[in-house]
Formats: sequence, structure tokens, C-alpha cells
Amino acid sequence: MLKLYHAEPVANSMKVLIPLHEKGIPFESVYVDLHRFEQHEPWFLAINPEGQVPVLDHDGFIINHSTVINEYLEDAFPDPPLRPVDIRERAHMRYWNKFIDEHVMNHVSMHGWHRFVRKVAQAIEKDELERLLARIPLKEQRDKWRTIAGSSFTEEQLAEATRKVSIAIDLFEKQLGETPYLAGNRFSLADINAYSHLGMMAERMFPELASRDRTPGFLAWVDRVAAHPGVQKALAGPDQTSPELRVFSGEAG
Amino acid sequence: MLKLYHAEPVANSMKVLIPLHEKGIPFESVYVDLHRFEQHEPWFLAINPEGQVPVLDHDGFIINHSTVINEYLEDAFPDPPLRPVDIRERAHMRYWNKFIDEHVMNHVSMHGWHRFVRKVAQAIEKDELERLLARIPLKEQRDKWRTIAGSSFTEEQLAEATRKVSIAIDLFEKQLGETPYLAGNRFSLADINAYSHLGMMAERMFPELASRDRTPGFLAWVDRVAAHPGVQKALAGPDQTSPELRVFSGEAG
Repeated sequence: MLKLYHAEPVANSMKVLIPLHEKGIPFESVYVDLHRFEQHEPWFLAINPEGQVPVLDHDGFIINHSTVINEYLEDAFPDPPLRPVDIRERAHMRYWNKFIDEHVMNHVSMHGWHRFVRKVAQAIEKDELERLLARIPLKEQRDKWRTIAGSSFTEEQLAEATRKVSIAIDLFEKQLGETPYLAGNRFSLADINAYSHLGMMAERMFPELASRDRTPGFLAWVDRVAAHPGVQKALAGPDQTSPELRVFSGEAG
Repeated sequence: MLKLYHAEPVANSMKVLIPLHEKGIPFESVYVDLHRFEQHEPWFLAINPEGQVPVLDHDGFIINHSTVINEYLEDAFPDPPLRPVDIRERAHMRYWNKFIDEHVMNHVSMHGWHRFVRKVAQAIEKDELERLLARIPLKEQRDKWRTIAGSSFTEEQLAEATRKVSIAIDLFEKQLGETPYLAGNRFSLADINAYSHLGMMAERMFPELASRDRTPGFLAWVDRVAAHPGVQKALAGPDQTSPELRVFSGEAG
């Protein structure tokens, strides 16, 4: 029995929802409401002491971190494969996954927190905020919430994040001028990662970097990825948050 | 034909040397002298535009980044396996690799640069330094060299790095109280990663955090990993730098 603890179909949660749907693996969906800080409640910390989604529970075996979960899904449910059979393409896939995990995700996320999540943090009363912060297990996450509840990130930090996003989009554009998907000729976990963390929101969040004129290959790839049945199913999943709080996913901001 | 471009047997270079020796794969060793900034010379940038070692060349197929290289070696040369056969242990291995890559390596490295590499940077004349910096392709690397050539990292940055190293050592100690190796019962890429980036220098660089009294399980594991034939062979490889410049590897600082 497979159970996925996740939030909205965007970023890390989207990244695991896509392979589950693409492979047609039956799973129980457990929605964790990040806007109500459910990921820091004792019941959830008992499952993942880091207080982060998504988490996969496979017959009681718990896995954290979306890149690790997705490689596990390939090991446990290899058909259809989202990890290339060709070992050179597989190395490309892992190169891109590492690049996205370390040099893309956090920088897009900083803009998302600054533009959208901040509205959530600033609406919370000071005493209540301190109570919520005290429950967050990871110092990095506590610091991030404190930052956006206060004066938010500095212009310099946001500009550096934009610089990193710009490098990523240009690298993707270059690669997608050579191959239809990031790791080669086939849709893989690298595309799922890049789409979930940047592709699906690039044109809306960074119109000066991603546009039909400036990066036609990148945006044609976004359309190609979005057309995959597993991506469509993931996008169509229930969204239990109010439209105002649908961070990143299109309706807010 | 396999060719490895690498520096001293420590950190990322060590991490790839160990599996090559452990599997007994014949390879051509190409030493890149980081102290003479060879990794930023045009001949090397033609191989890896990022200007970083190690790089693996397998019949002309080029792979960067040690975690990606090591998974590739498992795909191409599966015997003896350094990636667990059990898919749950494999997920554990990848969890630890991700943790080490994102939350350990850079923090140990900051102390290494502050204590050892700084001596190299500060011995270079200002004009020559600017010439060398101008050749570095990655902004992050340029910034790091400029920082240590100047006033180095702040006390606050170093303290934060120490905090992260401390968390890592305590997590390793806990895990190694439950299983003989990080991912379970067998020596794996996770041990190779943790040993190369922290285990091999922990007792010397962080004696207040890693000691026979405080972390007996962690240091017994260091000894166990060091006893592996591939690790011994990697450690015994030629070291072409002057003892004063043997950063991290034991003789300096």
C-alpha cells in the first residue's frame, strides 16, 4: 500500500505526484495544508521529523525528499520507466536533477515566498507566529518564516536568486535546442523536476527571462511536458486551499 | 577506456577514486593541480566548462559531479556493487548522499578554505590574483577565492558551518549505533561520500565534535571505512603537492 503526504500540485509535491500518475500506481493521497502549518503538527512530525512534504509511505517504509522518492519509485515500479534505460542518458538525468535541486529550486522558491507566502505570514498575529515558529524543527525553515514575516529578503538576495534562475533558463533553452527532453530523447525524472520547480511557473513569475520570443525552445518543452497524461492528472487533483493562498500555482499573485 | 581528472585523495576527488579502486577498474589518472589553478586553464575548461574536478571520461563520454559519476560507475561497472541491491537500502543511500552533498560538504569545505586554502590565496600577488580570478567560470568559485584572499569568512559564517557539521556528526553517530554502515549492513556510496567529505578529517579538524569519547560509533566507522582495500589504495596514490599545501589531507594545518 502506497500513501503520499503532499500539498498543492506544484514544486516538490508536484514532482512526486507526476510519476505516480504517469505510472498509474494506485496511492492514497493525504493532503497536508501548509497554510495551516499542518506539516509541523505532532502527528506529521511523527512521520517526518523534518516537518516537510512530500513523504512517501510504502507499506510502512517512509521516504523523504522528492528526488530520493522518485528514484525509489523507479526501483520499485519500473514500468513505464521515467529513468532512461541508456546509462549515459541516466547520467544526464542525474546531472540535471542535482543542478535543479541545488541551483534552481531554492531560488525560484525565494521569489515564491517573497511574493506569495509572505501574505500568509504577515496575516498571522505576533504571538501566534512565535508559537508556530517554535514548532518548526529545521532552523533553515524557521529563519525563512521569520524573514518573510518581517522585512522579507533583501533586494540583493532577490537579485541573486533571479541571476540563478536566469542561468537555469538559458541552460535549459540550450539543451532543449539539442534534444527534445533534458536528458535526451525521452521524458524523464529530470523533466519532471525542472517542470515542477520552474517550467510550470516560469512564464508567469519570470516573464523577462522566459517568453515565446526569448526562450521558444524552453516554453515549447513546457507545453510538451504539460501535455503528458500524468502531468494533466496531477494538475487536475483536488486543490483544497482558498484561491488567494494558491501559491505559485497560477491563481494568486 | 576510462580516464579520471582529479586532485588530491580527499573530498570530491577521493569520493571517485575509492569506487574505481574498490571495483578494480583500470583507469588513467590525470592529476590536476588546484594549487596552480590548472582547473581553470583552457585545456581543462574544454573538458569541463565549470572548471571543477573530478571529471570522468569514459570512451569520450564526459561526466561531472562526483555523486553523478559514482552512480554512473554503478550502472557501467556493477561488480562489486557499492549501491545496495535492496531498494530500501538504496533509498537510504540516496538520502544520505543528498544530505552530504547539500548539508555537509560545503560546510566542511568552508573551514578547509579558511584554515588551509587561504594560505595559497594570500601568497599570490594582487595583480596575479585578479588575472587568476578572471579565468574562473563559476561566480560562486570566484567569490570564494576573493573572500579567502581578503578578510576570509566571518565568525558568524564559520559558526554556522560548525553548527551544520555538528548536526551531521550527531546524525551519523545515531545511524551508526543502529547499522554498521550508513545505508544498512553493507558498505555503500553513502559511506564513501561521508568519509571523503567529513569522516577522514573529522577528528583532526573538529576535535570538539568528533572524538573517541563523544562519538565512538562514528570514529569506529571511520576506521572500518579506512580499512577497505579501495580506500587504502586511494590514500596511497601519488600526492604531487608540497606538504605545506596538502589541504585537509592531514599533513597541513
